[in-house]
Amino acid sequence: MDFNIIRIARAVINVSDLNRSRDFYVNALGFVETESDDQHIYLRGLEEHTHHSLVLKKSDKLGVHALGYKVAKEEDLDKLAAFFESKGLKTKWLEEGSQHAVGRALHVHDVSGMPLEFFCKMDGAERLLQRYDLYRGARIQRIDHVNCAVPDVEKAYDFFINELGFACSEYTATEDDRIWAAWLHRKQGVHDQAFMNGEGPRLHHIGFWLPDPLALIHCCDVLASLGYGDSIERGPGRHGLSNAFFLYLRDPDGYRIELYNGDYLTSDPDFKPIRWDLDDPRRQTFWGHKAPDSWFNETSPFLDIDTGEEITVSEAKLAKIKPEFII
Amino acid sequence: MDFNIIRIARAVINVSDLNRSRDFYVNALGFVETESDDQHIYLRGLEEHTHHSLVLKKSDKLGVHALGYKVAKEEDLDKLAAFFESKGLKTKWLEEGSQHAVGRALHVHDVSGMPLEFFCKMDGAERLLQRYDLYRGARIQRIDHVNCAVPDVEKAYDFFINELGFACSEYTATEDDRIWAAWLHRKQGVHDQAFMNGEGPRLHHIGFWLPDPLALIHCCDVLASLGYGDSIERGPGRHGLSNAFFLYLRDPDGYRIELYNGDYLTSDPDFKPIRWDLDDPRRQTFWGHKAPDSWFNETSPFLDIDTGEEITVSEAKLAKIKPEFII
Amino acid sequence: MDFNIIRIARAVINVSDLNRSRDFYVNALGFVETESDDQHIYLRGLEEHTHHSLVLKKSDKLGVHALGYKVAKEEDLDKLAAFFESKGLKTKWLEEGSQHAVGRALHVHDVSGMPLEFFCKMDGAERLLQRYDLYRGARIQRIDHVNCAVPDVEKAYDFFINELGFACSEYTATEDDRIWAAWLHRKQGVHDQAFMNGEGPRLHHIGFWLPDPLALIHCCDVLASLGYGDSIERGPGRHGLSNAFFLYLRDPDGYRIELYNGDYLTSDPDFKPIRWDLDDPRRQTFWGHKAPDSWFNETSPFLDIDTGEEITVSEAKLAKIKPEFII
Amino acid sequence: MDFNIIRIARAVINVSDLNRSRDFYVNALGFVETESDDQHIYLRGLEEHTHHSLVLKKSDKLGVHALGYKVAKEEDLDKLAAFFESKGLKTKWLEEGSQHAVGRALHVHDVSGMPLEFFCKMDGAERLLQRYDLYRGARIQRIDHVNCAVPDVEKAYDFFINELGFACSEYTATEDDRIWAAWLHRKQGVHDQAFMNGEGPRLHHIGFWLPDPLALIHCCDVLASLGYGDSIERGPGRHGLSNAFFLYLRDPDGYRIELYNGDYLTSDPDFKPIRWDLDDPRRQTFWGHKAPDSWFNETSPFLDIDTGEEITVSEAKLAKIKPEFII
Repeated sequence: MDFNIIRIARAVINVSDLNRSRDFYVNALGFVETESDDQHIYLRGLEEHTHHSLVLKKSDKLGVHALGYKVAKEEDLDKLAAFFESKGLKTKWLEEGSQHAVGRALHVHDVSGMPLEFFCKMDGAERLLQRYDLYRGARIQRIDHVNCAVPDVEKAYDFFINELGFACSEYTATEDDRIWAAWLHRKQGVHDQAFMNGEGPRLHHIGFWLPDPLALIHCCDVLASLGYGDSIERGPGRHGLSNAFFLYLRDPDGYRIELYNGDYLTSDPDFKPIRWDLDDPRRQTFWGHKAPDSWFNETSPFLDIDTGEEITVSEAKLAKIKPEFII
Repeated sequence: MDFNIIRIARAVINVSDLNRSRDFYVNALGFVETESDDQHIYLRGLEEHTHHSLVLKKSDKLGVHALGYKVAKEEDLDKLAAFFESKGLKTKWLEEGSQHAVGRALHVHDVSGMPLEFFCKMDGAERLLQRYDLYRGARIQRIDHVNCAVPDVEKAYDFFINELGFACSEYTATEDDRIWAAWLHRKQGVHDQAFMNGEGPRLHHIGFWLPDPLALIHCCDVLASLGYGDSIERGPGRHGLSNAFFLYLRDPDGYRIELYNGDYLTSDPDFKPIRWDLDDPRRQTFWGHKAPDSWFNETSPFLDIDTGEEITVSEAKLAKIKPEFII
Repeated sequence: MDFNIIRIARAVINVSDLNRSRDFYVNALGFVETESDDQHIYLRGLEEHTHHSLVLKKSDKLGVHALGYKVAKEEDLDKLAAFFESKGLKTKWLEEGSQHAVGRALHVHDVSGMPLEFFCKMDGAERLLQRYDLYRGARIQRIDHVNCAVPDVEKAYDFFINELGFACSEYTATEDDRIWAAWLHRKQGVHDQAFMNGEGPRLHHIGFWLPDPLALIHCCDVLASLGYGDSIERGPGRHGLSNAFFLYLRDPDGYRIELYNGDYLTSDPDFKPIRWDLDDPRRQTFWGHKAPDSWFNETSPFLDIDTGEEITVSEAKLAKIKPEFII
Repeated sequence: MDFNIIRIARAVINVSDLNRSRDFYVNALGFVETESDDQHIYLRGLEEHTHHSLVLKKSDKLGVHALGYKVAKEEDLDKLAAFFESKGLKTKWLEEGSQHAVGRALHVHDVSGMPLEFFCKMDGAERLLQRYDLYRGARIQRIDHVNCAVPDVEKAYDFFINELGFACSEYTATEDDRIWAAWLHRKQGVHDQAFMNGEGPRLHHIGFWLPDPLALIHCCDVLASLGYGDSIERGPGRHGLSNAFFLYLRDPDGYRIELYNGDYLTSDPDFKPIRWDLDDPRRQTFWGHKAPDSWFNETSPFLDIDTGEEITVSEAKLAKIKPEFII
């Protein structure tokens, strides 16, 4: 490929009540509100030098808009458009000005039918990394990754690795060596984009980076203090896969947010992807904890780039159920 | 009362395989082995200036010997003996020399039938608090408390408060104001001795103090690295009750160990015990996590101070089952 | 002695500008403001169940009022009054109502001329230990200790140990075994009251307890973010003596505040006080850092319980200068 | 440029006593010893999947060998050789087998006369990231960066940015906008290579990444416990520049090692380098601490790639002295 995708850079999700969501994301989790109007709240982490990494959009219909990837140059957008068209995949241009604070953007559906967005420019914002007086809740630093359920992980894997230039850091394989889940990255962490076998395409979660493990524990305490104990779905725990210290939350509309600290540098082209057996109890939670059923079964719908309607999903190709052997 | 009980100071438990237990307590959890022979291992925390706080005793019959409380003076032992005898409770003297590293000790059965030990003297040991190069695993600092299931918590509460001079920091009450569980202390932390409603008397767990929350997280990682993932029964989490950051483990023989950091100062006589409703979801785990069934249902037997046989237990007086409303 | 002193419980200091001090103590350090009027601000830590542990009193004349100790019972006050009078030491009663939120109080001057206060009752306040959403800055939990420069440490030591019933946890001695500094406690931590050799009586610092080491580091970050970098006088570091992780600050009027986490349990009557050589480089800072001259040379004046004027000081009996051998 | 430098990957330093150095690096700091012979010790961090990132080479003559950068492909080495030759800079090939565990390597002197090494292949080693039972001391994760004193920072800056393809994350400028120091990266952290104005080329320090801030504090404790208190030269503290939590040590031969946690993601081409004024007190230490003279004045010599002799140094072009205005 001759285009340069930098990293996952933003997500846009429909929410039913902006104030209720603001209370969760800003007051409890500690996101910074860059700007808002009566239809949107634009949020960023303390480290981010750009306008936002998460947009809450008021709507009666829940769902996830195209996942936003940042590219290096404007011309990368044209090359990406040509590439997606050459594959017969749906594309759509959003000219500069049509989305607040973002430059020209290309929206596409990928081989899994998942909506992706590519853009090069976003308005800047004051980077608050050293405004420690403003740190609250989980002390969110930046967007880290998205994780999506797709029916055919190997197809998604091949497309992202071979066509879009991602690298694989870790993956889960079945006994007969089928890829059941994969962690793929453009930036030099464990992932920008993960795929797991499941009915899809649907969004499993959006991950945000924290500065240290105690920020995550403090966030649990703050959530409980504010009456958000029910929002904690899983964790805190250590992922075997990625080695991250994690916490999974469900926002007021049910979207799953991962708070995440601890992965590792993946700069080296000769780093060999780490293989995990699907039945290794330390894969999901290094400490052996069982994830709740909801974590396996509940995901969020994507919206079509043209119609805005929920994208039709397909059944998972491999066994989808939660492995019984996880202790 | 005119005797002065200082604090919970040691526990002696029968284990089936000393080497297997050593691997768990010393190599994984980071206890210091003061001394051992082919029948015993004597363990202490890094902060402790005394010979041990936990004795592992080789035996085919599992069970917990009298829970050891330290008193201020030798004469306190005589006063305690007179007191227990006056109540018609069984007492037994173990003269100095009959237990390794411990002075003259009084063994008794209390109102719940629970075996207690009182002693004033224990051999000293090098305090390793500032030997950070020896810190391993959970960096165990010291014994903190014991928690026991008893059939009649109010009876145990009255005895410890009114007769033995303990104070109550927190308690759980039913809707009709019966005490379902109580946290009682002589030293100025949340507890030396906790009671919870259940078939008993039986030991629920022994708690050990850690220096900071990250030591607890690191311990989970070390346990998983060494293949002890299955030992983690519950946590890490925050207790509503006590405010401690906690982790519950099961040792190779099934004894429950709590790792614990964070309570608060209870020096003030006018501190009002904190009341928790039995159905407050934040009581058990501030963050709302559900404890596993095993944590509610499985406890360890006490041994009779005379016969060494398992002490007969009685059914709990109040509803014993795990509250269904805990989320 | 037949009175029961519980712990150091409050300090009252004159400040020149209430708003400037509020900004430092509340906004930067995270103290809770219980109440204020145009002459006072009453501050407490998140763990405290009583009205305040620090009072800022507006005054053009800087200085420290009698250091406030809490006793177990009202009658302890009478016994203390009789004791101080029997020693020919100045006493003064402040009847209930004469000090806001505090019951009847006894003010005295001790053998070093240092003003002390004893009281039994203080109004309650909501304990915010589990209101993690309110945690800010250093997450101050509670008052921990006071440290005072006195000209004759051994005289002060004897008085507090033999007459007031304190115990010694650690002390610094000269080559010829003179006590140069001492850490004394009533509650079961390392100290309520420390003395160090110096021109006095004068206050060296007031120490406050933090929940964990990262709260201390975060506080440095917050102070720097808010332009209070100059307030950091020494640390963060580890004390050899007490084993605490520490930070020394100077408030806007120059009073020294220690943030403190990590000491150990001192419940046992047979705990042997730890002796440090004055020339042990790990005594002051376990890691070997040198303390700045200001830390050794600058202290705050006490105010006479009758006149409110600065108490006359005497030269230190032992060599007072900062040891040159500290690296 | 049409070559792809990945990241700083290793340093090779002469030491006078291998066992003395092993005690410091392995026992105190927690490096993993991959291999050793009577002339070398090969060390790596817990995260590293390659044979080593630090080589200790026994020699009576102290000094630093060419700083080792990893490149993406073997052919990048040929392109780099051609480039350096085209600039009239000294180059030297070390064929595979001539250095243990490393493939073919190109050694060069850059525009500052600093010796650099480029290589593509290194033997693998077991990655111990999830062997938490082996974590010791500072829990070193990986090599992070090197910092060098050069007489003309702007010349070095131009060469690394314009010719070698590095990006600048932050820099320090004088009042008249001369670059006094610069932080340059190829991988997506704050730096692989930093330059500061000084007599040079000489090595200022090698930086290693830690997993979290408490690992750094624990390392101070371990160093003190083992008698290495004198090795702590500066910190712990927060850098304004880079936002990292840092500690500077001097190894037994005087080489400076930085332990480092906390920078940020620098993936975005539109990230604007952060400018710091030379006289901003928060630049060096965000909290305002003054660095000791030794930190400014003492550096280590580089060795010529041909002769192995110390490289001749030049005086700094800009004022070199430690700014007096740093508080």
